[in-house]
Amino acid sequence: MSAYLDNSATTKPCRECVEAVVKMMESNYGNPSSLHNLGIDAMKEIILARSIIANSLSAEREEIIFTSGGTEANNLAVFGAVKAKKRLGNTIVTTAVEHESVLQSVNELEKQGFEVIYLQPDKNGNITEEQIFDAVNSKTILVSVMYINNEVGTLMPVKSISRAVKKANAPALIHIDCVQAYGKIPINAKKLGADLITVSAHKIHGPKGVGALYVSKSAHLTSQNFSITFGGEQEQRLRPGTESAPLIAGFAAAVKALPSASEQKENISQLCAYARQKLSDIDGVVINNPADSSPYIINLYVPTFMRSQTVIQELSSNYQVYVSNGSACAKGKRSHVLSAMGLSDEIIDKSIRISFSRYNTKEDVDLLISSLNDLIKKHPKG
Amino acid sequence: MSAYLDNSATTKPCRECVEAVVKMMESNYGNPSSLHNLGIDAMKEIILARSIIANSLSAEREEIIFTSGGTEANNLAVFGAVKAKKRLGNTIVTTAVEHESVLQSVNELEKQGFEVIYLQPDKNGNITEEQIFDAVNSKTILVSVMYINNEVGTLMPVKSISRAVKKANAPALIHIDCVQAYGKIPINAKKLGADLITVSAHKIHGPKGVGALYVSKSAHLTSQNFSITFGGEQEQRLRPGTESAPLIAGFAAAVKALPSASEQKENISQLCAYARQKLSDIDGVVINNPADSSPYIINLYVPTFMRSQTVIQELSSNYQVYVSNGSACAKGKRSHVLSAMGLSDEIIDKSIRISFSRYNTKEDVDLLISSLNDLIKKHPKG
Repeated sequence: MSAYLDNSATTKPCRECVEAVVKMMESNYGNPSSLHNLGIDAMKEIILARSIIANSLSAEREEIIFTSGGTEANNLAVFGAVKAKKRLGNTIVTTAVEHESVLQSVNELEKQGFEVIYLQPDKNGNITEEQIFDAVNSKTILVSVMYINNEVGTLMPVKSISRAVKKANAPALIHIDCVQAYGKIPINAKKLGADLITVSAHKIHGPKGVGALYVSKSAHLTSQNFSITFGGEQEQRLRPGTESAPLIAGFAAAVKALPSASEQKENISQLCAYARQKLSDIDGVVINNPADSSPYIINLYVPTFMRSQTVIQELSSNYQVYVSNGSACAKGKRSHVLSAMGLSDEIIDKSIRISFSRYNTKEDVDLLISSLNDLIKKHPKG
Repeated sequence: MSAYLDNSATTKPCRECVEAVVKMMESNYGNPSSLHNLGIDAMKEIILARSIIANSLSAEREEIIFTSGGTEANNLAVFGAVKAKKRLGNTIVTTAVEHESVLQSVNELEKQGFEVIYLQPDKNGNITEEQIFDAVNSKTILVSVMYINNEVGTLMPVKSISRAVKKANAPALIHIDCVQAYGKIPINAKKLGADLITVSAHKIHGPKGVGALYVSKSAHLTSQNFSITFGGEQEQRLRPGTESAPLIAGFAAAVKALPSASEQKENISQLCAYARQKLSDIDGVVINNPADSSPYIINLYVPTFMRSQTVIQELSSNYQVYVSNGSACAKGKRSHVLSAMGLSDEIIDKSIRISFSRYNTKEDVDLLISSLNDLIKKHPKG
């Protein structure tokens, strides 16, 4: 028995995804830019996939730009937006709890002289609408906020950003990193008021190595004013390079295989409530994220003398239970999210994240609970 | 019967590659940065793949940075090198016949104020050592030259670059785009004298969506002075983002499946000589690239009233013969390579490229020849 509970780090590609990837590699291997029929056949699959991803965001096909994943999409969004708007202002608004691919990018821009405002969360990981309204002004050229935080599952008030931008009469482009929200809650690009939206395939049982950036038509972003890489004519020249048609087809297959939002919500809410109850029953466990966070993520303090890195290894090696201590991209570094929430060192150093996908079951939770109980008994806080 | 003769655009993933990709997706799906055993297992495959790619370039493992493909590797090389050296000079040396991912990148740098010298080829596509020596001076910060041209197969005098850089006492980094050379002729990074080398998987029967940049240890390039994207700790932070472990494993499997250089050379030289002879026998055909070009590429003028785009479609639809008219990334735009070689409009507009891989046979060539004969008879020059 094993329980994979690290789905916010990555998911297992679903059957439909693997089949699509293999089919493309074996029988539709042309270069999508080639003028002959093998090229045209590959391009047809990309067009179909683009429609599927666009539909999933209530967007139009030409608003979807495929990238190599969430990190590249976030980099393109941040640097591209600043390139497009830098003549109109100097200020970027973001939060202290973004993914590293946004934080490190705005950090680089800070070194180049841009002013970056990092909104600070409260102890539950929440950012308020007021904070956003207070931060945005007429010199703001980019507001980049994630929809759901990857470590604690907090839902950010992203829908208020477009109102804040309008009120301040800011020239800002609005970027929403939807990597943890996509495929889990309904996302409507227009209603979100976003110019740029990042999504990734491998968080929703698609392949690693492909993601997409929604680029609103109304933002009028072109290769000249937006692109950060240069080359061929692919992806409207916004992101050149031979398309990985197999991964793009696998991405679309994974999106097609998603259950309806309502079906997912009911199942995952039940599973999350069950897990939260069982975890609370363990003496000394503290759940760090509030009950109104995303039901896909539970962040908890484990009462043991061991640090979370060791807990993760113990759970993995002795119980075949796979969890994390925050973003995989950070490779075990101290969580900047829990730090920003003002939690104590004891909590930060000994907290783990469990993250669900629709394939998880109560049996997975039961294995987690029994494993944690056993681990805490063997290695108590002391 | 069909003949796929567009292998410089892309190749069919080999069986070994497909198997490796599927195996990773189905049973080794962890995030390589995760601290648990599923993450460690995925990372082990990446380390193994990195060793295989490093060995294939006589390089060290830590000198290989995986990217999403050749275009990204070329962008990272060009922009990264300029970022690293811009305090020491202002001049870039390249050729007029580079791939779009280098040309468009240096073009962007030209707009930013850098001086770019584009070496012009002769009518055979050749650039001389003297041209390189003449162009490099003490203000040169980057020399970027491809090893084998993708449209006409010319071998560039890349080994002379390091001597030219030394003689001029230039602070330049040396970048060699080896996308068309890799897996076909032996490449020894040190002997090539290169700081940066671009390779791509999908040109050697590996997957689309993965490539690598060799970054010489001796160049002392770091995330701070070199990176163009920002985020997690992956790939020494030189290229962040969750690694596509399946594609990386597929890349390594394709490299392992390569025959020895000598075996390949003998087979392909015979096939190329056979094709050149048969093509020359067709009345009115002109072969645009000299016999000492790469044996994997033949560029030829087809004596018909139709433009090459139409020839490509006709060959594809009526004869199942797949060829191109230059770089797929250019999507049928007028060839900048043939233009730089000073060929006539008639030749440029009606030339096609056939490009071999080790899986091509004499039967493929025979089908090409009979198809061309038939096509020319039906649609003569007029």
